[in-house]
Parts: sequence; C-alpha cells; structure tokens
Amino acid sequence: MSAIRLNDRFFPPDLQQDARTIWLPAAQAALRALVDKTCTGSEWTGWFDWPKQRGFALQREIATFIQDLDVGYDLVLVVGIGGSYLGTRAVAEALSHPYGQLIGGSSQRPAIVYAGHNLSEQGLIELIELLDKRRPVVNVISKSGTTTEPAVAFRVLRSYLERRFGKAEAAKRMVATTDAHKGALKRLAAESGYRQFVVPDDVGGRFSVLTAVGLLPLALAGFATEKLLDGADQIFRELQAPDGGEHAAIRYAASRTAAYKAGKQIELLAFSEPKLSYLAEWWKQLFGESEGKQGKGLFPAALSYTTDLHSLGQYVQDGPRNMLETFLVDGRREAPIEKRMRVPRATDNLDELGYLEDRYIGEINEAATLGTMVAHADGGVPCLALQLPEWSERGLGQLFAFFETACAISAALLDVNPFDQPGVEAYKKNLFGLLGKPGFEGLGAELRRRL
Amino acid sequence: MSAIRLNDRFFPPDLQQDARTIWLPAAQAALRALVDKTCTGSEWTGWFDWPKQRGFALQREIATFIQDLDVGYDLVLVVGIGGSYLGTRAVAEALSHPYGQLIGGSSQRPAIVYAGHNLSEQGLIELIELLDKRRPVVNVISKSGTTTEPAVAFRVLRSYLERRFGKAEAAKRMVATTDAHKGALKRLAAESGYRQFVVPDDVGGRFSVLTAVGLLPLALAGFATEKLLDGADQIFRELQAPDGGEHAAIRYAASRTAAYKAGKQIELLAFSEPKLSYLAEWWKQLFGESEGKQGKGLFPAALSYTTDLHSLGQYVQDGPRNMLETFLVDGRREAPIEKRMRVPRATDNLDELGYLEDRYIGEINEAATLGTMVAHADGGVPCLALQLPEWSERGLGQLFAFFETACAISAALLDVNPFDQPGVEAYKKNLFGLLGKPGFEGLGAELRRRL
Repeated sequence: MSAIRLNDRFFPPDLQQDARTIWLPAAQAALRALVDKTCTGSEWTGWFDWPKQRGFALQREIATFIQDLDVGYDLVLVVGIGGSYLGTRAVAEALSHPYGQLIGGSSQRPAIVYAGHNLSEQGLIELIELLDKRRPVVNVISKSGTTTEPAVAFRVLRSYLERRFGKAEAAKRMVATTDAHKGALKRLAAESGYRQFVVPDDVGGRFSVLTAVGLLPLALAGFATEKLLDGADQIFRELQAPDGGEHAAIRYAASRTAAYKAGKQIELLAFSEPKLSYLAEWWKQLFGESEGKQGKGLFPAALSYTTDLHSLGQYVQDGPRNMLETFLVDGRREAPIEKRMRVPRATDNLDELGYLEDRYIGEINEAATLGTMVAHADGGVPCLALQLPEWSERGLGQLFAFFETACAISAALLDVNPFDQPGVEAYKKNLFGLLGKPGFEGLGAELRRRL
Repeated sequence: MSAIRLNDRFFPPDLQQDARTIWLPAAQAALRALVDKTCTGSEWTGWFDWPKQRGFALQREIATFIQDLDVGYDLVLVVGIGGSYLGTRAVAEALSHPYGQLIGGSSQRPAIVYAGHNLSEQGLIELIELLDKRRPVVNVISKSGTTTEPAVAFRVLRSYLERRFGKAEAAKRMVATTDAHKGALKRLAAESGYRQFVVPDDVGGRFSVLTAVGLLPLALAGFATEKLLDGADQIFRELQAPDGGEHAAIRYAASRTAAYKAGKQIELLAFSEPKLSYLAEWWKQLFGESEGKQGKGLFPAALSYTTDLHSLGQYVQDGPRNMLETFLVDGRREAPIEKRMRVPRATDNLDELGYLEDRYIGEINEAATLGTMVAHADGGVPCLALQLPEWSERGLGQLFAFFETACAISAALLDVNPFDQPGVEAYKKNLFGLLGKPGFEGLGAELRRRL
C-alpha cells in the first residue's frame, strides 16, 4: 500500500495490458537492479534511500549550523541552475503564500529568491535593487563552480556583499554547497572562509533536492526539512518492502513506458493548484534530462488547470493523438483544513451560479479535474492519475522519492542511462567559443563564420 | 522591411525550399483572404488592422474613463481566464520590475494581480488577504459572464467589495468588460451600475489583447497602451503594403508549416529573458487553441533560456527529432540603455571567469542564445529566429500583431478554422454534470457511474 496511489481506470485496456504483461516485469527487474546497485549508472544512485543513509544526519548538521549563524537575515538568495534550485523552488512555491511578502506580518518566513539560473542582465540589476532593501544570506550551489550562469551571478553578488558588509561579515553571509574535494568553488570557499556543504559524488543535480542542495536553503528559509525527509523515507521503505515491485511508482513507470512504446511522444503533467508549477518544472527536468537521449524519450510538458484548459485544452482534446496525460489529484479531501471558502449566496442570481451556492470552491476544482480526465480520455488521450496524500513538506518528500524512482526505472526500460546528460555540453562549448574562453578560440572563429 | 525580422539560416535547406515553393504561395493567398475578409471564419477577423479601425478611438475613451474615475486605487485585479488575461499579463510581466512591489517607492505603478483563471480555493483565500491590505479596482472580463472560473471568483469578490466599501463605492470599483448586447455579466453590470466596456463580436478571446480586454486593465495599471497600438499598427500596415506577402510573419507561417508537414510535432518558443514567460503563455494559447483541432497542429511549448538548457536542453539536443525551435532574439543591442551591468573584476581568479571581466552580462546572454541555436541546429532541430526591435509596449504590440497574423495564416494552411475552439466544451459539460447544474443531471449520473 503506497502513500501515493495510481489510478489507471482511464488508461486504455490495450496499454494497461502491455504495461502489466511486458513492462511491469521489466520494471520490477530494474527496481531490483537499482536496490542492488547493479543498474547502469549505479555510481549515481546515492539518492535512493538517502534519508536513512545520510539525509537525517545531514539535516541535524544543517539545523546546528543555522542555530549558530551569527548574522541576521530576512532573505535567502539561492544561486544555482537546473537541479541546484528547481527542487528548492518546488517546495518553496508549493508551501508559501503567493502574496506573503506583500502582506508582511511577523510570522513571515524569510523571503527566498533565485539567481544564477539565467543570464539576464536586467534580472541581476533588479535583484541588486531588492538586496539593497534586505539583509540577505547567499547560498551558492555548484559542483564545479565553473558553470557560467551561477559563476557570473556569484561574482556579482560576492562583489556586492563585500562592498556593502565588508569582507568579514560578507563571508558569514555566504555559504557554498559544492564538491567535497575539488573544483573552483571549493577553492574559492576555502580561501574566503565560507561555510561549505557538500554536493555528494553519487547524486546528480536533478536527483539532489534532499541533499544539502535543497535541505540547506529550505531550512534557512524556515521550511520543515525533516518532514521532507520523512516523506521520502516512507516511499523508499515501501519500495524496499517485499511487495515493492507492485508499488505505484513502478506501475507508473511501466504504464508511461507502454504509452511511449505505443507511439506517444508527449507526457502532460496536469495539476489543479497553481502552487505546483515549480514542482512540475522539477518533474520536467527530472524526466526530460534523464530520458531525452539517443533519440528517445517522452517530451515532458506541464499543464496548470483549469487555467490551461482555456489555453492548451483545445489541443489536448482535439489535436494529434500523440500524448498521454498524468494528473496529480489532490487527495486530501478528508484532512482537516482550518480555513475554507464557499461560494457566497447572492440575493439575485444574475450570474446563474445559484446551483453552486454554499459549495466549497475546492469541490468545484475537484469536479473540474475529474471531468477533464474523463473528457480527455473520451477524446483518445490515455490518462493516469496520481492521488496525493497531503499538501505539506511530507507530501512533497513523498513525491520527490516517487518520481525519482519512477524516472530511474523508466529510463532503464528505454535502455538509456538516467544519470548522465551528455547533450548539455553542446551549447556550453559554443558559448565558450563565442566568448573567447582560452582553449576555445578555434571553435569561436568557426562559429562566427557560420553566424 | 518588417519591424520584426526572420532569420532562417539554421533552418534545413529542404524545409526552406518547401516553405518557399509550396507554403509561401499558399500563405500569401491566405493573407489576401484575411485582408479581403473572404477567409474561413472571416466574421472573427476584427483583430486585423484593429488599431486604425477601432483601437485608437477606444484608447482615448479608456483614458477619459480613467481620468474621471473618482476612487483611488493601488491595485488592479483582473478577473478572467484564457484570452481574457494572458495578453494583459504578457505585457505587465515583460515591462515590470519583478520585485517592484517588494521594494516600493513613489514611482511605482499600481500592482496588477489576477483571479478567475483557475478554481484554487486556497488561491482565492490568499487573494482576499492581499486585498485587505490594498485599495483595489476590479476589472471582470467575460463575454458571457457564465464561464465558471471568473464567475465564481467574481461572486466572491463582489460580495467582498460590497461588504468592505458599501454598495455604492463597490460599484465604482468594478468595471465589466463583456458583450455589447447580451449575457449574464451584461445584465449584472447594468443592474449594479458598473461601468462597461465591450468584448467585440468579431474578435475571439485569444486575439483580443488590443481590445478593451487588454487595453483597459493595462491602462489602469499605468502602461502606455497607445504605444501597444502603435506597434501593432505598424505591423498591420506592413502586411497591407504591396510587398506584404514577403513579410516575416508570412514567411514564419510558411516555414513552421513546412516543418509540420515534414513530420515535426512540437514547436518550441525559446527566449532569453525570464520576463517573456507570459508572452510565451499567450503564444501557446494563440497557436494551441487555433491549430489544435481535427487531429492537427504543432504542440506549442515554451523554453526560458538559459534556465531550461539545464532542464529540457538535453532532450532538445539528443531526444527524438520531432521538434522545431523558434528563438526570440533580443535585437535591441544598439538602443541606448540607461543602466547596464558588467562582470566585475576580481583580484583572484578563483572562479576562472577572468576572460569575462568587464563584459556586459547581456553580451554573454546573447552569445548563449546564438551558441544554443547552432548547437540545436547541429543536433538536427530546425531553428528559426525572430529578431525583436525593442523592449517596450511598442515592441510587444508588434509581436502581438505579428503572431496573430502568422497564426491565422498557419491555421489556414492546415485547413482548420483558426477562430473556433469546439474542444473546450467537453470538460465544461462534464464539470456541469458533476456539479449538478440544472439540465445536466443525466450526464452527471453517467459520469459518477464511470468514476
């Protein structure tokens, strides 16, 4: 019995059968290889069973660091790209008040903002204008320290903090999460006296949210990181139980593989709370970067409902039948919720909503999700539903472990290494060439001829 | 000579030839049919040449309304879904300081926020908490007034404003943009004494940004809406000039159609400034809802660079060759820019960025965009680039007219009506059935049996 349930009632019978008879046995073998560390890329599977192996101990170390921190702060700035910030942002956005910083109030968590995940000049200028009004701590996250985006942003920020606070206090306001032994950021942090945390050697960026990469900034910003670990731990325990091969994560991997092998090219992740947008961004990176190689893989796309029913809904209903759709269904109906909102009564019925009076708005949202799943299934889109148990750090921790495992298994079924990303180098090389980085002069000249 | 240029140097020669010899002549015929109003769905082409026909006059009417408004406000709340808010949000996000509201300051525009574009209960609760701290005006935008999402939100907001301000002042703080003659919102506004603006009969939602749907909230929030119209007007004049058939918008339509007919299934819109995210959302609705019917159409997806090079970049480089990619390239290099930022010098070179010292960060961003285009083209992805002339209301107005025209032409080449959206009804019917709306009881019972 999994904390996250899979409903495949609206998945076509032929795909259900392929999933059960062909792909589930293969997925179960892949799970055993993952647990036994005999799978392809096994040197990158430190994320599996992470909480018990290292996560809980790390969490206590981080708590102590924060307790002992002797600078005050009201803003946490995360400098990182890809897996170095997406998991953090997924948690922060899912569990924050979207207008919290505008409203203020004493119970506010520190704000959390991001840099080093693009090369927008205007974005950095505007970030500095924000920092001028705040007392920031900066967590720079990069295994090598030489990835262009975070390195450029961090050079700007380091210069800013040293000018504003002086070298000694600036050093206290910066924390580096980087390689344990080598690299540019490691050396910079050591020489400058920044506190360091480790990006483990056996966990790739997109699987790193529960390492210091995610735990440190989330703890600095006041989130209950021990519950994130609790949630993930529950899923990893379920997967290692005797019936782990029947786990929803394994059946999800088998089902989506059946759809891919039957010719589907796009997987839509549909959710009904806008706060899940960055969880979907995290999911897109996880699956896109793990599977999209050797000409293979489902293109991952996210749909925020009901918003996108008035945008891409037409395409999903009537466009090419090249998609499957996975719904994240809010399963917390029975949970006690302190504040609820109903459709108010009106003396007139000019808006023709009388039939909805006194109904919870969440109930209408749930009906929209179910109605959409049926409509899309009737339109020929294979649909899966994942029922989430709770909206909290614990629930998000469950989702992280669930999707990471399902992704590793899915990639194994496609016969690709889930843990490398050779294609990301191509643009970096061209960037170095165009910018005249030493060693790339020849490539630069060639590119300028072509452009 | 178009204000927006198309570069197809990294589009494969065979597709270039198909575009030029097969699809460009067809696109030129489609443009003539659009201008002559003999195309399919011609009763919905009021958006074409809109500024000169009606836009500039409307803009003056809106300016007078705002001048005469006798309530103070510091927040504009837009209640609408799909085309009723996406164009507004595209402009507002592209031209706003992302942290402007956190920083404050006297030159601030009123904040602009959105409701009625989803059914999140929590989202509405948190919105009310924000409104409690502000003095809002509310612009509800719905042609019929019975679309569930904005109708539910507006019932909540109407009740809130009347309780807080009293009926008389609340009526001054609400403006309805709706059908000129009929419908639930029209009746409600008339009975309640709200000022009304019109959703024209001959302009569909996703083509409506330059009607009152977009102009009114943007003008209320302090944007230069006359420049939006100026920019669009320039493109519409170019398209109606003798050489209009060679316009970049027409060649873009022919090129993307050539890629689709050669088997591509996904179009990626790539941009290098995160502030364009909602312009991309607007573009996704425009193309997805116009083309995605009768089993046809490119799936529209947006990529924010360089962010997504560390997310979906691997898939684009090495995944299935089922995509084309359209880059929005920032062409404003020569424009005077008041504030710029360079990579600062450092006494050490521990981050190995010495070769970038004193370079503008925007220059690095531009190199990344070009390097990515070459890398993806070399990886087998047909690439197009649209060079934008300026980052302003005028530039966005140009883009709106450019893409609206290219979209109408593209849909004509697919032989689908660009202006209907029959597939959007399916989920609405199921929603009504599940909620027990009078008249849908039978469907509701059937759905409950299936769920």
